[in-house]
Amino acid sequence: MSPRAGAPAEDGQGFVRVRGAREHNLKNVDVDIPRNAFVVFTGISGSGKSSLAFGTLFAEAQRRYLDSIAPYARRLVDQAGIPQVDAVEGMPPAVALQQQRGTPMARSSVGSVSTVSNLLRLLFSRAGHYPAGQPMLFAEDFSPNTPQGACPQCHGLGRVYDVTERSAVPDDSLSIRQRAVAAWPGAWQGQNLRDILTTLGHDVDKPWRDLPQRTRDWILFTDEQPTVPVYAGFDRDEVRAAVKAKMAPSYMGTFTGVRRHVLHTFANSPSAAMRKRVAPYMVSAPCSLCAGRRLKPEALAVRFAGHDIAALGAMPLADLAQCLAPAGQGHPATASTHRGAHRPAPANPRHAGADDVLRTPDDSQEKVLAAQRLAGEILARLQTLQSLGLGYLSLDRATPSLSAGELQRLRLATQIGSKLFGVVYVLDEPSAGLHPADGVALHEALGRLKAAGNTLFVVEHDVATMRAADWLVDVGPAAGSQGGEVLYSGPPAGLAGVARSQTRPYLFPDPAHVPAPRQVRAPRAWLRLRDLRHHNLDGVDADLPVGCLSVVTGVSGSGKSSLVSQGLLELARRHLHLPAEPEEDGAAAEGEDTAQAALPPVQGRIDEGMAHVARVVQVDQKPIGRTPRSNLATYTGLFDAVRKLFAATPQARRRRFDAGRFSFNVAKGRCATCAGEGFVSVELLFLPSVYAPCPDCQGKRYNAATLEVTWEGLTIADVLDLTVDAACARFAEEPAVLRPLEVLRDIGLGYLRLGQPATELSGGEAQRIKLATELHRPQNGGTLYVLDEPTTGLHPADVDRLLAQLDKLVAAGNTVVAVEHDMRVAAAADWLIDMGPGAGPQGGRIVAAGPPQQVARQRGSATAPYLAQALRPDAKA
Amino acid sequence: MSPRAGAPAEDGQGFVRVRGAREHNLKNVDVDIPRNAFVVFTGISGSGKSSLAFGTLFAEAQRRYLDSIAPYARRLVDQAGIPQVDAVEGMPPAVALQQQRGTPMARSSVGSVSTVSNLLRLLFSRAGHYPAGQPMLFAEDFSPNTPQGACPQCHGLGRVYDVTERSAVPDDSLSIRQRAVAAWPGAWQGQNLRDILTTLGHDVDKPWRDLPQRTRDWILFTDEQPTVPVYAGFDRDEVRAAVKAKMAPSYMGTFTGVRRHVLHTFANSPSAAMRKRVAPYMVSAPCSLCAGRRLKPEALAVRFAGHDIAALGAMPLADLAQCLAPAGQGHPATASTHRGAHRPAPANPRHAGADDVLRTPDDSQEKVLAAQRLAGEILARLQTLQSLGLGYLSLDRATPSLSAGELQRLRLATQIGSKLFGVVYVLDEPSAGLHPADGVALHEALGRLKAAGNTLFVVEHDVATMRAADWLVDVGPAAGSQGGEVLYSGPPAGLAGVARSQTRPYLFPDPAHVPAPRQVRAPRAWLRLRDLRHHNLDGVDADLPVGCLSVVTGVSGSGKSSLVSQGLLELARRHLHLPAEPEEDGAAAEGEDTAQAALPPVQGRIDEGMAHVARVVQVDQKPIGRTPRSNLATYTGLFDAVRKLFAATPQARRRRFDAGRFSFNVAKGRCATCAGEGFVSVELLFLPSVYAPCPDCQGKRYNAATLEVTWEGLTIADVLDLTVDAACARFAEEPAVLRPLEVLRDIGLGYLRLGQPATELSGGEAQRIKLATELHRPQNGGTLYVLDEPTTGLHPADVDRLLAQLDKLVAAGNTVVAVEHDMRVAAAADWLIDMGPGAGPQGGRIVAAGPPQQVARQRGSATAPYLAQALRPDAKA
Ligand SMILES: Nc1ncnc2c1ncn2[C@@H]1O[C@H](COP(=O)(O)OP(=O)(O)O)[C@@H](O)[C@H]1O
Ligand SMILES: Nc1ncnc2c1ncn2[C@@H]1O[C@H](COP(=O)(O)OP(=O)(O)O)[C@@H](O)[C@H]1O
Ligand SMILES: Nc1ncnc2c1ncn2[C@@H]1O[C@H](COP(=O)(O)OP(=O)(O)O)[C@@H](O)[C@H]1O
Ligand SMILES: Nc1ncnc2c1ncn2[C@@H]1O[C@H](COP(=O)(O)OP(=O)(O)O)[C@@H](O)[C@H]1O
Ligand SMILES: [Zn+2]
Ligand SMILES: [Zn+2]
Ligand SMILES: [Zn+2]
Ligand SMILES: [Zn+2]
Repeated sequence: MSPRAGAPAEDGQGFVRVRGAREHNLKNVDVDIPRNAFVVFTGISGSGKSSLAFGTLFAEAQRRYLDSIAPYARRLVDQAGIPQVDAVEGMPPAVALQQQRGTPMARSSVGSVSTVSNLLRLLFSRAGHYPAGQPMLFAEDFSPNTPQGACPQCHGLGRVYDVTERSAVPDDSLSIRQRAVAAWPGAWQGQNLRDILTTLGHDVDKPWRDLPQRTRDWILFTDEQPTVPVYAGFDRDEVRAAVKAKMAPSYMGTFTGVRRHVLHTFANSPSAAMRKRVAPYMVSAPCSLCAGRRLKPEALAVRFAGHDIAALGAMPLADLAQCLAPAGQGHPATASTHRGAHRPAPANPRHAGADDVLRTPDDSQEKVLAAQRLAGEILARLQTLQSLGLGYLSLDRATPSLSAGELQRLRLATQIGSKLFGVVYVLDEPSAGLHPADGVALHEALGRLKAAGNTLFVVEHDVATMRAADWLVDVGPAAGSQGGEVLYSGPPAGLAGVARSQTRPYLFPDPAHVPAPRQVRAPRAWLRLRDLRHHNLDGVDADLPVGCLSVVTGVSGSGKSSLVSQGLLELARRHLHLPAEPEEDGAAAEGEDTAQAALPPVQGRIDEGMAHVARVVQVDQKPIGRTPRSNLATYTGLFDAVRKLFAATPQARRRRFDAGRFSFNVAKGRCATCAGEGFVSVELLFLPSVYAPCPDCQGKRYNAATLEVTWEGLTIADVLDLTVDAACARFAEEPAVLRPLEVLRDIGLGYLRLGQPATELSGGEAQRIKLATELHRPQNGGTLYVLDEPTTGLHPADVDRLLAQLDKLVAAGNTVVAVEHDMRVAAAADWLIDMGPGAGPQGGRIVAAGPPQQVARQRGSATAPYLAQALRPDAKA
Repeated sequence: MSPRAGAPAEDGQGFVRVRGAREHNLKNVDVDIPRNAFVVFTGISGSGKSSLAFGTLFAEAQRRYLDSIAPYARRLVDQAGIPQVDAVEGMPPAVALQQQRGTPMARSSVGSVSTVSNLLRLLFSRAGHYPAGQPMLFAEDFSPNTPQGACPQCHGLGRVYDVTERSAVPDDSLSIRQRAVAAWPGAWQGQNLRDILTTLGHDVDKPWRDLPQRTRDWILFTDEQPTVPVYAGFDRDEVRAAVKAKMAPSYMGTFTGVRRHVLHTFANSPSAAMRKRVAPYMVSAPCSLCAGRRLKPEALAVRFAGHDIAALGAMPLADLAQCLAPAGQGHPATASTHRGAHRPAPANPRHAGADDVLRTPDDSQEKVLAAQRLAGEILARLQTLQSLGLGYLSLDRATPSLSAGELQRLRLATQIGSKLFGVVYVLDEPSAGLHPADGVALHEALGRLKAAGNTLFVVEHDVATMRAADWLVDVGPAAGSQGGEVLYSGPPAGLAGVARSQTRPYLFPDPAHVPAPRQVRAPRAWLRLRDLRHHNLDGVDADLPVGCLSVVTGVSGSGKSSLVSQGLLELARRHLHLPAEPEEDGAAAEGEDTAQAALPPVQGRIDEGMAHVARVVQVDQKPIGRTPRSNLATYTGLFDAVRKLFAATPQARRRRFDAGRFSFNVAKGRCATCAGEGFVSVELLFLPSVYAPCPDCQGKRYNAATLEVTWEGLTIADVLDLTVDAACARFAEEPAVLRPLEVLRDIGLGYLRLGQPATELSGGEAQRIKLATELHRPQNGGTLYVLDEPTTGLHPADVDRLLAQLDKLVAAGNTVVAVEHDMRVAAAADWLIDMGPGAGPQGGRIVAAGPPQQVARQRGSATAPYLAQALRPDAKA
């Protein structure tokens, strides 16, 4: 252990002091970390970096601050409990910029997150060009999310929803009694509507299509809501007789037309289930008034630099910056591009009471100055966004369509404009998804946050970032129970002396250690992609070797994912007559953004090579399941083998317990109280329901009889509690269980528990589990594996292990294509494709293709210099 | 202007820099304020202190931080918009400890806010004395708010709710058809239940009381839910015939008993309106299982220091501290007080899986150490609470029953234990409700927060606090538009040179200025209170002079409010046959705390003097209204006179507009779109509803025809927009309007707008408005005014004005009794009563009574030395 490790700072001034941290695998850690510094937390996957930086420091800071300002708000922001730590002192409030798992904020966009949209609306309000006679508008008038600005026809959605006869009556051969009107509610309320129609004299037993069109239209589209006597169970004639006889009706019923019912329920029902029920009965189309631009006509009539605000929102940020540049320099840009429409703004605006509207009678000096100031602020923010490699995004791009890395950098750029002072920013691998060429800008951005009076705690695997840090905290030495110690805490140079550190060899490579030069494999055949069109790819041709490891590189936004994760994947699937990208399992449909239009399909073809591909597998970072019922053991299938072992014990046989008995998803063996969940939700008078460990099984998930059975002294619940590493030892004699376990361990997941719920896994962990599942399949070649940045979240030491696994897949005759920024992975490829040269419209082309050694010499490639460095035999990083 | 005022700090290091602050009345203020300092913001009421400290600095800090961590959370924490300010730099995240307006957090208690309850539960869990054989419990098992700990009979409410025949059937002469079962739902569902009873063969037309008891009990209390055929509209015989004839029923209906319906609706309905509807049909009683202690029997069986946890929660904190002191010193306190019950805890606790339970086989050294550590932590917190004058509270005291000052100090004490670092605490008059003797402890507490690495921004009127500050920011010179400048920003001593400051004369009294000695009034008669019992008053006798100003002093918790605001007030009301304290208007009933038991009435009598009292008026800090429809002008009645002026204009007479036309609460004159609210709520597809200024009247509240009428060039909407000061000038010739306006101005409210909604007023402003309303009434003596700390929120200069107004009331023959901590008010009284000597059980007695000069000489009175100082002729403070 280094002399600095865990040693308290001389006087505690200027340091955050942690004492006795025991969160997750941390071993009673004491460490002092400087404030107002750029601190990087290092260590292999599972060593405990996040447990220290996020689980302890951030969680404790957040908890303290939120408890202080509004205890009830904490629950909404963060559900984490109280970290296991004796003391944390000198820790200011913290802001986490984390790779988000789960749903990002619904309805947010690049413009709203970056606050550029607000400024742009102010710019249009105060310095836009208004048509003659049109009163000036408020900033809110330019937002489709306000009642003031929204297009009155589509309420700012850009699409209109309606009910048609076809959408509401899917099968017109049915009668009303047979529920022809499928969009109507069932049960009670449906019966009520039918009885009302009977009273109104309509035939509810005739096929729908045989009813007069006038009747059908009235039932579907009327806004009338007549209230009539209802004689429950009577037919038309009986009702007529009963009315004549002045018989008392069962009750008075009120009719509601189908369109009214559907639209009203969809817009107003507090029940998500109700809204979901009626949604399929609506059709949608682009709004005819705003043409999908979501704003009211008066707002769309206002222009700046020749464009309406919707058009500026749809431009790549780089183009937007060019558009606003003249105004930012004080030129009346609007006039030059819009000479014809140039008119003085009205002297007496309608909203006379508002400060918000500049009351200048014309394009005066004041207006030019306002434009300059606002455009200047926008340009400053755009500059930051561009420098972080996000210039290819547009303001109206919805955040859920961004990658985790893009979203984190967007939030980072926003923070630089936020003027926060004296906080600790805690970041999770900000280099993820970033090309090495963009790393310098990232470090500059972090430096600006520090210069503004803040502290940076960054969990990072990127060696260049470690070198840029003021201070390193290295956690290790290994993962899970073999980690959890702070091996070093001090300036980067000092790590050179810490022998136990797995980070050290990558930061200080040993010049004596010369790796054997890699032998590039000869392709068995070529996959020839032709005329690919998608996003910024405009007719790209690409060749990929079959039976090899191909890596696609390029700056962020250059089109790597469009080429590989979307293009190659979708075209290959089409060839194999597989359905396109399977639908997200309901999560998207549940969200608020149901109005989002579907993406257009990929265009292009694969001319050659698909004869060698029998199967296509995408190994991505999406969760392996969305409920705690899915976990590592069930997903990888190894739990099946474990359950068979339990069923084969004499105890189980005597009790006639089969393998199904040992599944917590099957009734007979699981705890009845919690149905195998391990916890119960408890409803209390006056209180929101709470989750509590199941009182019967205490979280074990199984019933007592099941838990009586043991295999080698372990209950089935005990097995789920083992880590992969521990399980390797316990199941050493059981090849069916051991094989998948070993693959998991070899891929760096030894620290995970077998029962670790899917919901607790990171994207990188999910990706590696999927990979492991593939690796322990019987390999007969012919599979095309598509990976997107598989090294995300991996320490260089873990990357080495991952590479060995990918090599195994290729050795078995498969084809592997990966998008990747890690130059050590690129250097290890058989074939490289470098996209670029820039991002968005400036990218989308293949800048270089060939074996790594060749690409490294390519001029004009942003990747070449970094690749060349990685290929130098003495460079481990 | 002082040379330091607004001057930028030399280098900006260590300072918060504010540029161009324009919130409310602030006049484009530039000011630099040091961090890591104790800064006090001074200035008369309405000068703009809060607009700077809270409205600008706190709001901006809060907004930035919350926007950074979770934009959606901001809306929940704080609805304030973006402050009007050009730049705020170097401002760390902030925590506000404000005098809370509106509802404090429901269901919170002194124990939960201070976090002492959590620690106490841990103490009981790990170091409590368990009965023989009882397994150890988790901390949550000791909380009535968890399913684990709650009494199973009352679900932790302490009371049980039930439905009785009397509560459900208020009038048993009605038949079921006549809605005898009032607790049942109406409409549809009620008719359904009636029809089901018909099918079941019951007579729904007989008076309820004539039904057999068995039938009635079944209808009321059954848990059965039979589903039967319903023939809507049929009577019993018809149903019988129909069933026989196998006629198809209208539908199948399911019965639900009355108790089941009521309890289920109350516990589970998501609709507040539904819960409210059924609430009156329930009766409640203390729970027989837990005797109101809310915990399950196993938890109540565990003891520490001889008490169960509910008993410790009910003790004054000072007593609790005594109780835990031995354990805090490492003595096994439990053993000594509980020798008999002393038994080893079981070696094999039920919750074996939990770290939470200490698995020691007996009262071992570990257990004593755990007790010592936990008791030590509790004692540290209790010590802080006691030093802030809160030792008389108990842990189970609900926070809504605390005064604003008590709540603020409770939160302050909690903050000292919160370990926050690097934040700015923004406090609002922390000395409110605090006796001068407690001030030293307050300053110490603030000093501890600062020493822990934080900054303190305190809005304060208390001169002793100003003296204790490192830095003063004096805002002024006067209120509203006459204020809003920073007159001085620097160390306190420098304010001596700032001539325009209204704070200066109180901080640096002019020895040359000797006020005339006050003439004490002779009482016309005495109000003789006898044998008063309430809270800590245990048979107190008190005499108060009629026609005089009496002031009651004493440390916080000594019993001042119990004597005056509750005792005197309630007894006097009883004498005049007035109802007791009118019910809070629904706010309490709406909250979560409906389970709270009502307070017992005051005991005692007034033997003499009530013959001189014809009327009792309480002038307290409760809001003057809970909706924006109530405002300053309507509450004081001056708006009536204004409306008459408008109705008398020729324009109005020509149009036949009467005074009612000019009320925004009457349909004819107000804007129809917003019904006179000035804003409308807009519902949008997918979005929560939003409030927007009314598009028709733009917030003016009136319709166009009404606004055509002007009086002296002002529309009625313009009048509502005037400040009191401005209105005094405009209505100088109109005595009916001018008189109330002048009183408002004289009492220091000149800065308020006439239309200022009730919901925007502080407690102190509400109190002064009530006082003003009384002052401009025709005075004929005989009124008893009861005031509780009327100087809260008042600058010393405003206190002088208030005193003048109180003198006027007394001069008119009225009796004024005020609870007060301000020694200048005490010194100005005709009669003083000093309560004490301590708080809670240590108080409740009259320590001294007499004219101020006499009380100032009383030994053993905590008030005497401070009073003596205020009586020295050269002391303005
Ligand atoms: N939510 C959790 N619950 C239980 N164990 C966890 C949880 N998160 C992480 N761990 C465990 O803590 C250890 C350290 O994990 P982590 O701090 O995420 O490592 P790193 O950030 O270095 O990859 C691992 O053994 C991991 O399985
Ligand atoms: N869902 C999407 N909607 C619209 N444009 C997209 C979407 N995804 C990517 N793009 C655009 O396509 C271009 C290439 O992006 P992408 O293939 O993701 O690049 P890379 O993978 O190299 O970062 C960029 O201009 C990007 O903005
Ligand atoms: N919510 C508000 N809306 C409009 N005006 C306000 C509001 N709050 C305060 N003001 C006005 O701002 C001025 C300064 O008030 P404030 O900052 O509360 O003064 P102080 O704290 O010094 O008593 C006063 O004229 C007051 O009426
Ligand atoms: N609503 C209440 N419920 C229970 N105890 C109370 C309540 N109000 C006051 N007390 C108790 O009565 C005693 C006197 O309090 P109070 O009359 O408010 O003192 P003061 O007005 O001097 O601060 C204190 O011990 C206090 O805890
Ligand atoms: Zn539209
Ligand atoms: Zn269970
Ligand atoms: Zn009970
Ligand atoms: Zn209106």
